[in-house]
Amino acid sequence: MNIGVFGTGTVGRTIAGKLHDLGHAVMMGTRDVAVARERAAGPRDSESFAEWEARHPKAEAGSLAEAAAHGEILFNCTAGHASLDALTAAGTDNLAGKILVDVANPLEFPGGVLSLIVCNTDSLAEQIQRAFPETKVIKSLNTVTARVMVEPGELGQGDHHVFLCGDDAGARQRVEEILREWFGWRQVIDLGDLTGARGMEMYLPLWVRLMSVQETPAFNVKVVRQG
Amino acid sequence: MNIGVFGTGTVGRTIAGKLHDLGHAVMMGTRDVAVARERAAGPRDSESFAEWEARHPKAEAGSLAEAAAHGEILFNCTAGHASLDALTAAGTDNLAGKILVDVANPLEFPGGVLSLIVCNTDSLAEQIQRAFPETKVIKSLNTVTARVMVEPGELGQGDHHVFLCGDDAGARQRVEEILREWFGWRQVIDLGDLTGARGMEMYLPLWVRLMSVQETPAFNVKVVRQG
Repeated sequence: MNIGVFGTGTVGRTIAGKLHDLGHAVMMGTRDVAVARERAAGPRDSESFAEWEARHPKAEAGSLAEAAAHGEILFNCTAGHASLDALTAAGTDNLAGKILVDVANPLEFPGGVLSLIVCNTDSLAEQIQRAFPETKVIKSLNTVTARVMVEPGELGQGDHHVFLCGDDAGARQRVEEILREWFGWRQVIDLGDLTGARGMEMYLPLWVRLMSVQETPAFNVKVVRQG
Repeated sequence: MNIGVFGTGTVGRTIAGKLHDLGHAVMMGTRDVAVARERAAGPRDSESFAEWEARHPKAEAGSLAEAAAHGEILFNCTAGHASLDALTAAGTDNLAGKILVDVANPLEFPGGVLSLIVCNTDSLAEQIQRAFPETKVIKSLNTVTARVMVEPGELGQGDHHVFLCGDDAGARQRVEEILREWFGWRQVIDLGDLTGARGMEMYLPLWVRLMSVQETPAFNVKVVRQG
């Protein structure tokens, strides 16, 4: 399937790499392909984008608009504070009618203190949905680190949960299939309409704190129920 | 031990009832004892406060100040939006030097929509700590329903996590002992200083959504780590 992935950072590479390895026709979208290819590996990256591309020869890279036009399904893996601008550059018409899996978290660290740029009675996913009403926005995967998104079985034999929500029930069902069949998630919880993204994004401060005290991002939560 | 519990709602009764059954000298503090005793059972309560008192004959009830003066350790089980007023009524001197376990969540539902009255770069627990600097505020237990707080073993054989945080390391250690030895928690995660309460409180929108889609409050999360 033709898939567009916005963002060439760790999350975008991890999602795109998995889809590439599954045989899908992936195009990564970024503001400036040449700049992305020239950029050195970041402090948390194991390789530069150019090195990543060399390992994924069938993955294409283009502008945000080109990746949006290419994809039948789209993944927003941009930084949350830049997502609305990136999607505007991708183009309303290129996004219309398509599923957009919003993986982004609206985090900033002004003065080193974690802060959400939107929360409580709104969320980034809802902002995106309002800005692009003809796109089917599904929030998912933002509650785990990139590696766990596509290799959930590496953690606790996969016995933990991923969440999703969105206003289009058919799109939620399609993304649940993608999570299960492509990424290997065994346990998916459908949180219903897109206001569920508030809780999914507001969970991040707890996630960041858990990462800090456990000294690893390689964890997730399992919802333990009675019985 | 002498323990003060602020609030006669479900959470206060559940905490106080457990402590009563363990043989502690519990005093519940409320704004007006007579009013609390006359109140009928709420829609989610299995019994009225008067009925609860009849089942817990050794538990005392008094004013917020009386319960604060009585307790060597204190539990804030008031509604989050009323906690600062209740603690002010309890009295700075009565709270000074003591551990206050803050179980409250700063939730409101204006127009039926969940909203936190404080979040992101502040939390209710931090507001309380700033208002009562001589009290050792420890945030804990707010991420589970009342029954799970004191009977964690009823859920998944107790294989799930409770969090705590606070600025005083000794108080954190003491509350961890209470959680393990009195309430039966097997897995406690110390999140460090009290800014960890931001994540613990901001997790509530996800908790409320999970309660809604699962149609039960009887659940909790287990943190699944690599390896």
